[in-house]
Amino acid sequence: MSTPTPSERASAWLANFGKALAANDLNAIPKMFAPECYWRDLVAFTWNISTQEGREAIQQMLASQLPQVRPSNFTLAGDATEADGIVDAWFNFETVTARGHGHLRLKGGEQGDQAWTLLTTMVELKGFEERKGENRPKGAEHGVHPGRKTWLEQRKEEEATLGYTKQPYTVIIGGGQGGIMLAARLRRLGVPTLVIERRERPGDSWRKRYKSLCLHDPVWYDHLPYLPFPDDWPVFAPKDKIGDWLESYVKIMEINYWGSTTAKKASFDEAKGEWSVTVERDGKEIVLRPKQLVFALGVSGYANVPKIPGAETFLGDQHHSSLHPGPEAYKGKKAVVLGSNNSAHDICAALWEQGIDVTMIQRTSTHIAPSESLMELALGGLYSEQAVKNGIDHHKADLIFASVPYKIMHTFHIPVYEEMKKREADLYGRLEKAGFMLDFGDDGSGLFMKYLRRGSGYYIDVGASELVANGSIKLRSGVTIDRINPKSVTLSDGSELPADLIVYATGYGSMNQFLADLVSPEVADRVGKVWGLGSNTTKDPGPWEGELRNMWKPTRQPQLWIHGGNLHQSRHYSQFLSLQLKARYEGLETPVYGQADVHHLR
Amino acid sequence: MSTPTPSERASAWLANFGKALAANDLNAIPKMFAPECYWRDLVAFTWNISTQEGREAIQQMLASQLPQVRPSNFTLAGDATEADGIVDAWFNFETVTARGHGHLRLKGGEQGDQAWTLLTTMVELKGFEERKGENRPKGAEHGVHPGRKTWLEQRKEEEATLGYTKQPYTVIIGGGQGGIMLAARLRRLGVPTLVIERRERPGDSWRKRYKSLCLHDPVWYDHLPYLPFPDDWPVFAPKDKIGDWLESYVKIMEINYWGSTTAKKASFDEAKGEWSVTVERDGKEIVLRPKQLVFALGVSGYANVPKIPGAETFLGDQHHSSLHPGPEAYKGKKAVVLGSNNSAHDICAALWEQGIDVTMIQRTSTHIAPSESLMELALGGLYSEQAVKNGIDHHKADLIFASVPYKIMHTFHIPVYEEMKKREADLYGRLEKAGFMLDFGDDGSGLFMKYLRRGSGYYIDVGASELVANGSIKLRSGVTIDRINPKSVTLSDGSELPADLIVYATGYGSMNQFLADLVSPEVADRVGKVWGLGSNTTKDPGPWEGELRNMWKPTRQPQLWIHGGNLHQSRHYSQFLSLQLKARYEGLETPVYGQADVHHLR
Repeated sequence: MSTPTPSERASAWLANFGKALAANDLNAIPKMFAPECYWRDLVAFTWNISTQEGREAIQQMLASQLPQVRPSNFTLAGDATEADGIVDAWFNFETVTARGHGHLRLKGGEQGDQAWTLLTTMVELKGFEERKGENRPKGAEHGVHPGRKTWLEQRKEEEATLGYTKQPYTVIIGGGQGGIMLAARLRRLGVPTLVIERRERPGDSWRKRYKSLCLHDPVWYDHLPYLPFPDDWPVFAPKDKIGDWLESYVKIMEINYWGSTTAKKASFDEAKGEWSVTVERDGKEIVLRPKQLVFALGVSGYANVPKIPGAETFLGDQHHSSLHPGPEAYKGKKAVVLGSNNSAHDICAALWEQGIDVTMIQRTSTHIAPSESLMELALGGLYSEQAVKNGIDHHKADLIFASVPYKIMHTFHIPVYEEMKKREADLYGRLEKAGFMLDFGDDGSGLFMKYLRRGSGYYIDVGASELVANGSIKLRSGVTIDRINPKSVTLSDGSELPADLIVYATGYGSMNQFLADLVSPEVADRVGKVWGLGSNTTKDPGPWEGELRNMWKPTRQPQLWIHGGNLHQSRHYSQFLSLQLKARYEGLETPVYGQADVHHLR
Repeated sequence: MSTPTPSERASAWLANFGKALAANDLNAIPKMFAPECYWRDLVAFTWNISTQEGREAIQQMLASQLPQVRPSNFTLAGDATEADGIVDAWFNFETVTARGHGHLRLKGGEQGDQAWTLLTTMVELKGFEERKGENRPKGAEHGVHPGRKTWLEQRKEEEATLGYTKQPYTVIIGGGQGGIMLAARLRRLGVPTLVIERRERPGDSWRKRYKSLCLHDPVWYDHLPYLPFPDDWPVFAPKDKIGDWLESYVKIMEINYWGSTTAKKASFDEAKGEWSVTVERDGKEIVLRPKQLVFALGVSGYANVPKIPGAETFLGDQHHSSLHPGPEAYKGKKAVVLGSNNSAHDICAALWEQGIDVTMIQRTSTHIAPSESLMELALGGLYSEQAVKNGIDHHKADLIFASVPYKIMHTFHIPVYEEMKKREADLYGRLEKAGFMLDFGDDGSGLFMKYLRRGSGYYIDVGASELVANGSIKLRSGVTIDRINPKSVTLSDGSELPADLIVYATGYGSMNQFLADLVSPEVADRVGKVWGLGSNTTKDPGPWEGELRNMWKPTRQPQLWIHGGNLHQSRHYSQFLSLQLKARYEGLETPVYGQADVHHLR
């Protein structure tokens, strides 16, 4: 007998799995999984974003969901492959309401092939598919239709009525990249949606940031849904170029977008099952009454400005990094930048480039990931020109990324940063010699885990670390600013630093502060802390959650959702959030399984 | 011995061909072609757009060009296929200055495999490739660059200087789809270019047309370079949507575009080898001094309005179709539309839809091609969702389309329209019964040949023909308007028709009328007639030219070019025009072969 191929092994497993699911055989199924096993589900089985860790959790989830989900038609998609004893396979499947796509990692052993990781994702709702490809609209409406309206007339009518005489089903507060991407998907799905943004134009969330900002993630990681960047798009797009792209995107995708509009108050009417959202547009108050309310305010809404004694006596300029206008006005002055993450480094470098005397105040240790190394070691396999040539476009890359359970993700990352330490030994050595406090995360798992756990604590080095290492950017580390004087700052070691400009590159406040302010502290507390995994590492207290808290999934406040993340996450998870909203819009059953408890408030 | 595969046959032919070219063996090469043979070259060999018909012409071209072009490295690209005794193959090759891609049709026979058709196209100039994919710009310019300018500062500086203190190498007059696509390609190639457009915003050339207009060609045919439409784009895009797309495209592609700018006068300074182009922008005259001047004014610049006695006495509205505002203002009125092509039909249908009494005056016979049939029978194999699934995207489709020599193109088309006559027999019969005068072109080759030969004479039926057939749109055929009275028109058969509105759907004037007006009648005459093949059919007098007159290739006026055509042509041929301009910008040798003589002035 010949050895079965990886595809034969995966197909056999999927066939058995499908059979056991159809038979509701809750005893057989756990044995099809390895003792250490993970099933990550994006909406398809759980109407949640949820990872079951271990056989028992899987069994419990199925006991709850199988009768309602009724999965079927598990079929291998493309050839499976094998490496290091693991069979990797893609597959399609269906549920009673949806079509899905999944990924499987099988381990061989005495018990035969068992699943180590399983990813199931919802692709589209049956009967509510996006109208694309051969199902795209005709546009011209051939034939004759007395009194028909043109596309332009329909668009104008929609703009004039939505939010006034017709209520949107969904209101998205925040018109940055996240809100826009979700709105584009909802538009395709035919869910009436309105985006509210306090800044004037789409893209302003990038344009209004410090002048020298470029994306720190490469282009292959940054595509928006439906309209990939042209193939000459720069690897790291300058902020104004990405701002213009977002503005064009809103126009092209026909998103209903209210710029210069501030959300002032929102409350949920339990009896009516709808929100009342008061916004101010063009100086007038308007009350919107959507069924679903999405907060897509990202991390850069609430500037975190420390209260430092004497700040009011300062004679120079002081502002948060989000309000920093760029270096030009400060030629010949002395600048102090409090903080040592991405914005702090970028701003220091731009100040130095203009010949300005600049000092960085590093309060705690920072993870430095040089961009080239990060691209090659961490991202290159999934998001790069080479990956695209290998058949891994960003759609596939997103799914591969999603297929790694958070519980073990750090074990995938630690070796990457071990390699980075070797490769960048010279830079790291010189940084430490200059007094810079380095770290690689509590467990050495580096940048992306820090991002998931706490959303801070790193700089993707695009040049400023060299300036810190060689002293061009002056550094004071292990201290903070204790007191601000009219023309200087006093550091916690007692020393004094002359200053004409203070930039607070001190990050952003908790995401659910928005909820407290806009809705109520009670609702904010009901929803609880946003972001983080419960990894019990710095700034990410346990218990373990298994998924990012409250992101893209049902919260404890009915009909309230939180959307956001970097471009990659906003792109990928907007798919699942849009499907959850569409299902509710169409009145489908959406039995949510495994909703997380709230362990922390902010 | 096994029969050689199509790929083996094509590879063998290409190897021999490459060898003979390298050896400059002008005796061997003609025998490698069938007695009936065509070599169409898009810039790669001839620095021209030129078809050699027959062995002798091929031999003459090579005698002139081979020493300078020095082609090499002919290699099969993908698998060749065989159908109906013809081997179809794609190949790559190089010349001394460029990389090329080509297509080959081989016929087997007693003499072995001989080429029936050969297409050679230039893809990129060596050393001047577009910066895309893995060669895309970095964007962030990692590292530190004191005094560096941001992307936004650079764009603003460029906008402030180009045309004022810095001269563009190329000025494109006309900012419609053609000018925009060419400008996008030149931008990528780093050729400083300025687009001049009299209308305010990009896209206005579509927006300002009659309200009900949708593209008559389907989406797969209409993509612009570099940024394909999203996959939910309608099959037939409404005019305002395509207008908005063009506006976004100009922004995204960073095209230097002067709207609301009128070209007033242009003259060529032979001594300096540059143009002097006087334009009016924001009420001020500016003189531009480009080396190359491109006319991209399309067909819709000069409205062709017949001079009819009594027109000045008319009490109602009268205007050319390009100025028709839409039907709303004419409710309860009587409309007369002179003409029976696309615009006439669309405008009549929109008027009828508003309940307006409308009569179409058909002066001469018209070709009616129902859109569904046209899509299925004529375009579907190359431009459709099915084609895309078969691996024929628009890039490949454009090349397949280009591979058919004009001399025999009608023979490919006649059977399509024979089939259309059968399929649409009912509609055609009812149209004739209603008095509509039908034709299918002088030789029955239908729509696209009419478009190439004369640019007029047809309607792509998206519904109005039914209205003509059933009498909803009233029809007077075989007559014209002899006289206009205050409240009526008198037709050439002596009858009188009441009229409150007259629309002249009477087409557009000769493209080189622009040259006469803007430059001089002498230059217009030197360049001669634009468009048409010399097919000796109606409105396309002989002699045979083999290519469209003056389009996308050197004209008899040095440094003057004409660009245009439908979206497909503008997309495809802008590639070859941009490479011709880039080569001249970089000072490369561009030995033009086979420049056409001028046989007609307008």
